[in-house]
Amino acid sequence: MNHDITPLQLRHKIRSGEFTSNTSGYSPGFVQGNLCILPADYANEFLQFCQANPRPCPLIGMASSPGDYRIPKLGEDLDIRSDIPSYRVFADGNLVDEVNDVSNLWRDDLVSFVLGCSFSFEEALIADGLEVRNVSEGVNVPMYRTNIDCTSAGRFSGKMVVSMRPMNPRDAIRAIQICTRFPAVHGAPIHFGDPQAIGVNDIDHPDFGDAVTIQPGEVPLFWACGVTPQVAVEQARPPFCITHSPGCMLVTDLPNSHLAVM
Amino acid sequence: MNHDITPLQLRHKIRSGEFTSNTSGYSPGFVQGNLCILPADYANEFLQFCQANPRPCPLIGMASSPGDYRIPKLGEDLDIRSDIPSYRVFADGNLVDEVNDVSNLWRDDLVSFVLGCSFSFEEALIADGLEVRNVSEGVNVPMYRTNIDCTSAGRFSGKMVVSMRPMNPRDAIRAIQICTRFPAVHGAPIHFGDPQAIGVNDIDHPDFGDAVTIQPGEVPLFWACGVTPQVAVEQARPPFCITHSPGCMLVTDLPNSHLAVM
Repeated sequence: MNHDITPLQLRHKIRSGEFTSNTSGYSPGFVQGNLCILPADYANEFLQFCQANPRPCPLIGMASSPGDYRIPKLGEDLDIRSDIPSYRVFADGNLVDEVNDVSNLWRDDLVSFVLGCSFSFEEALIADGLEVRNVSEGVNVPMYRTNIDCTSAGRFSGKMVVSMRPMNPRDAIRAIQICTRFPAVHGAPIHFGDPQAIGVNDIDHPDFGDAVTIQPGEVPLFWACGVTPQVAVEQARPPFCITHSPGCMLVTDLPNSHLAVM
Repeated sequence: MNHDITPLQLRHKIRSGEFTSNTSGYSPGFVQGNLCILPADYANEFLQFCQANPRPCPLIGMASSPGDYRIPKLGEDLDIRSDIPSYRVFADGNLVDEVNDVSNLWRDDLVSFVLGCSFSFEEALIADGLEVRNVSEGVNVPMYRTNIDCTSAGRFSGKMVVSMRPMNPRDAIRAIQICTRFPAVHGAPIHFGDPQAIGVNDIDHPDFGDAVTIQPGEVPLFWACGVTPQVAVEQARPPFCITHSPGCMLVTDLPNSHLAVM
């Protein structure tokens, strides 16, 4: 399928069941988001958790009321129950199903949250001529659990998870400048250099994703990662929860440049 | 003398001979500049050199014509011949005199250039709560010759000189963000980490200024430095040249915030 499809066209193909795979590379230039759907009883605390931890949990949209499956700010004719290629369903914190549509699981008390993801800033880095190692090596970005505590909110707490991309110092400085423009997709790195300073003891064995090559003269840069809220949700063990499957994102109508603060 | 004096008042005290010392810390909040005065025969090439090397040579003002000793853009009633506390006079690249007034040396062919200096971004870093080591240790910033070639322009060429300030990675990221706002005072660092990667072989023995402490967990950050054009001028050996004495700057009427690009 042609990657240069509009977000609306892609969502319609997803809704019809024609498209059920990873969204990476589709509708280039448009924001893709992480999905988290929680019962109203947990929603306010999760919202506070995102508010208190904007680097790992940059909220770019949410449903205006429980039961609402539309988020007009993020997309025309968007139906959050059917417009993601693959969903994960959790009960009491345990993965119980992976499905392509959650319309039949929908409830009047469900609140939908969409969080920014690193695809947006990776596109900006590559557009500036920087190499993003996980992209050039064709693997998932390496992600690590750190010793950095998130600010707790109600039942949500946990350590920050970070993604890592190695660069030489000159490119690293440029990457910090570029990502600073995009606070809604994790913003600037939170650390570079010594992994142990943030509790990462084995850079070659990430906790999530794949290892990438670090060349001589390069330093690892660490960004706050959207897996952080997933870990917090798993630990909170809400009775019911729906997320996207890894890599199968909500493709929105927002241009990436729309997220730039300047 | 009270440090909270307006730039105009300070320049008048300098002009009258009442103030002849280092300007560091005076008129806080206002831009201080490096001075370089060259014969018209060299001025166009020096202007090209600054244009081609904006990181080490950020031009913030120049006289509009040879012989003109006013730069209204930089200050009310500014007289470049008398408003700097101490001048160095060079003949054929050699220091021949250090004086408090160059009115009696003035010539109709002299062109004045004023370049941004690191005082402005150090103030912004400190205002944000970051420690600037050379300031907290009360010494001159350490500066080093690198192996980075400047772009040549006519008779002006040379290696880039850098200043160094150590920080932990989190503060370093913030410093990169803050300095990015100030391209007119050297902008973001050009390098961090391994000094040898830019030809600095002995971090404990700077080529100019004083060594500072690097704490465990800190990395050295390197900024392009205003000593670079001085070195280029020394190497070009113009028959006549006037600069400020180290630390004795032109105090302008421009607020530091005026240099921020955003």
